[in-house]
Amino acid sequence: MGKGVHVQDLPGVGKRYDIDLGRPDQRISVVLRSGGIRDLYVFASASADPTAVIELSEEQARKVGAVLAATFFEA
Amino acid sequence: MGKGVHVQDLPGVGKRYDIDLGRPDQRISVVLRSGGIRDLYVFASASADPTAVIELSEEQARKVGAVLAATFFEA
Repeated sequence: MGKGVHVQDLPGVGKRYDIDLGRPDQRISVVLRSGGIRDLYVFASASADPTAVIELSEEQARKVGAVLAATFFEA
Repeated sequence: MGKGVHVQDLPGVGKRYDIDLGRPDQRISVVLRSGGIRDLYVFASASADPTAVIELSEEQARKVGAVLAATFFEA
């Protein structure tokens, strides 16, 4: 599962995950901060600047993660 | 877990999940297409138009989902 994901320690901050989407114009990076907050960086162009940045709480990130993995079920 | 997620059937396409992030300027929608492809819509402003749209294969979406849920482990 590690293929296509580059993990980097960010001392004092947390961990950064770069997820390769196999296209130069699509990339997703996630910073997992030590406190639980996740920063989602979406790159939808070849630019080095993210197209969108979203801050997610741990609970919100789990919801988005479950939807993406198709393991989300309505309560 | 269903709180804050609105699910809508898209006949002939799949299902659409709108994930409320508790802020008017941040929203995430995911369309799970019947074939497995996921369309990730990121709204990082109050606009009705998405800031970024990313198409993910099932495998890619699972990777991003695992990273967001902090259940991702390197192979």
